[in-house]
Amino acid sequence: MRTHNCDVLVVGGGIIGLVTAWRAAQRGLRTAVADPAPGGGAAHVAAGMLAAVTELQYGEQTLLDLNLASADRYPDFVAELTAATGLDTGYRPCGTLAVALDADDRAQLRDLHAFQTSLGLEAQWLSGRDCRRLEPMLAPGVRGGLRVDGDHQVDPRRLAAALLRAAELAGVAFLRSAVARVECAADRLTGAVLADGTSVAAGRTVLAAGCESGRIAGIPPDVLPPVRPVKGQILRLRVPPAHAPFLSRTVRAVVRGSHVYLVPRENGELVLGATSEESGWDTAVTAGGVYELLRDAHDVVPGITELPLTETLAGLRPATPDNAPLLGRTALDGLLLATGHHRNGVLLTPVTGDAMAEVLTSDTGELPPYAAAFGALRFGPARQELTV
Amino acid sequence: MRTHNCDVLVVGGGIIGLVTAWRAAQRGLRTAVADPAPGGGAAHVAAGMLAAVTELQYGEQTLLDLNLASADRYPDFVAELTAATGLDTGYRPCGTLAVALDADDRAQLRDLHAFQTSLGLEAQWLSGRDCRRLEPMLAPGVRGGLRVDGDHQVDPRRLAAALLRAAELAGVAFLRSAVARVECAADRLTGAVLADGTSVAAGRTVLAAGCESGRIAGIPPDVLPPVRPVKGQILRLRVPPAHAPFLSRTVRAVVRGSHVYLVPRENGELVLGATSEESGWDTAVTAGGVYELLRDAHDVVPGITELPLTETLAGLRPATPDNAPLLGRTALDGLLLATGHHRNGVLLTPVTGDAMAEVLTSDTGELPPYAAAFGALRFGPARQELTV
Repeated sequence: MRTHNCDVLVVGGGIIGLVTAWRAAQRGLRTAVADPAPGGGAAHVAAGMLAAVTELQYGEQTLLDLNLASADRYPDFVAELTAATGLDTGYRPCGTLAVALDADDRAQLRDLHAFQTSLGLEAQWLSGRDCRRLEPMLAPGVRGGLRVDGDHQVDPRRLAAALLRAAELAGVAFLRSAVARVECAADRLTGAVLADGTSVAAGRTVLAAGCESGRIAGIPPDVLPPVRPVKGQILRLRVPPAHAPFLSRTVRAVVRGSHVYLVPRENGELVLGATSEESGWDTAVTAGGVYELLRDAHDVVPGITELPLTETLAGLRPATPDNAPLLGRTALDGLLLATGHHRNGVLLTPVTGDAMAEVLTSDTGELPPYAAAFGALRFGPARQELTV
Repeated sequence: MRTHNCDVLVVGGGIIGLVTAWRAAQRGLRTAVADPAPGGGAAHVAAGMLAAVTELQYGEQTLLDLNLASADRYPDFVAELTAATGLDTGYRPCGTLAVALDADDRAQLRDLHAFQTSLGLEAQWLSGRDCRRLEPMLAPGVRGGLRVDGDHQVDPRRLAAALLRAAELAGVAFLRSAVARVECAADRLTGAVLADGTSVAAGRTVLAAGCESGRIAGIPPDVLPPVRPVKGQILRLRVPPAHAPFLSRTVRAVVRGSHVYLVPRENGELVLGATSEESGWDTAVTAGGVYELLRDAHDVVPGITELPLTETLAGLRPATPDNAPLLGRTALDGLLLATGHHRNGVLLTPVTGDAMAEVLTSDTGELPPYAAAFGALRFGPARQELTV
């Protein structure tokens, strides 16, 4: 039986697992990632909007602070990644325009603007005409919009590739197999056995397996994180040179109450998303999902009809009861979490890496102040034990 | 340089080229097919409706006779193919239901019914309620329809695979390379040079290259057939067992003037088509094409929203000025055509094979009476020379 020893085993090689492993290895920890196909995961499907301000939700002001902290870190983060690897991440500081089509949509966007303003966030209300001046492909029916110059984008597939390379260069070991089960001894998690039979002994194990994190074998039921899959269907279109630039920034819209967005990349890709479906582990692309995305996007930007449709895909977001991530130590010694990022995994990658590195290297094992509200202990029986 | 000698060279290994080669070889002719990927072509994209009656068009009564003749041959044709190869073609004598949604669509379908009746064709008018009794997944808004029990379906991909195998078994040589140019000597076509350098000497050469037939190098311009590409986009959905049977027969509809159809296979595939676009050689699947197909199909059968969308594809139909095929000899000795089948290639496969075998083996080289109206000489300068 093959064995592997490390200080930190990261279960899951998506962007959250990769950034955690990279940062841990940079701090001198012997780090391994277990994943049959690192660099994949939900980020392979995601659009890569860094939309802290335009995606603001009522009741999520605490999460907003973390989102803004991570957005602030993005320019330095991608510069560091590119310097380390020579790989471009597709980071594009292009801003976002959120538009409304009918009176109800406009009212909803006005409310969002008022909420943003009350929190001191920068967003500028534009008339429909001004929206079309900024983005001439917008439908004549667009009635107004919010210009948010601070919400940018990155290409999640390139980001994952760069993180994978950076982690390799920092000395992270990649164990290309799934975790069959984790192993405990004397109330402490001691490592894992992989599907290929490898036995991994680890000082600490970080679960970063996205929505799979809630069903890893061997973890006591009362410690399993409360993450569930939320399906997202997404389309990729191509903007032929004759139609370029088509859109110059991310365009979001509320269309009859549902949300749609179009993210134009510099390489001509146009990402169109996304559904949000509570349908268990199903990852089928459905006729209805594709239809609704195309219908809503067509109402906002009718010119998409001419564009080649190059990819249809579905993925699973790891959602938690409060839509915020689960970070840091759990009630089980040796087990930490970095999961539950739901819609914000790409945005929260830089800050998650920094927070997890702090947890893994500090004497106390506590999250740094900016991430303290997102401790893995805030749900379930584990929390009750601690707070009694 | 490699050389190959044969009585008949068929340029193009789609279903029309394959059936021609198979029938020629059965008659004892040494036959070769030149195609880099035989068994492909427009049939790889097509839905496989055998809809002579429901696809009836005004002004195409002559073509109707050929379509009906071919539909009549289908049961024996697929039985012969399966006996020869052991391969199933997915032939399904399930009938067709053509439905209408709004008053205009209903009027159009009523006109079609009157026209069908005037020609002695069998089609039964049904109320909307009777349509839904036959196919419970139909939308409540369906206002009536035509039940055509004689319009069936076949699976074009399976058909192509069976034809390829049958041709191989009958001794057809497959030259897996494209034709670079045909060769002429003394006003006679004598064969072709392939892209891989092979030189083919052929007594007769049959152009069966679909819409490519109009741009084969080496053919004098006044002999080149007047075929043009007509793009069709098509979708494939999957009916999970929990939703089966979903539809029991082919459902066609006129939706706000456009046509959409749903062809349910016994293996759970549901084919949804098709656009008809005059857009040159472009074969991109577009956001607009997919959107319109899903929108129209959703209006007719709302339950498709639940079904996985497994494939999006576009192909090129070989269209002629009168939408009918070009068969038999041309003004250039040694060159024959079997192309231009437009929307009816799958339906016309049996009768085309029989007619071409007649042409290739009769002393006169004339088409048999049932195909005489579709001679390759009926268009262009070649015809004028002959009729002056």
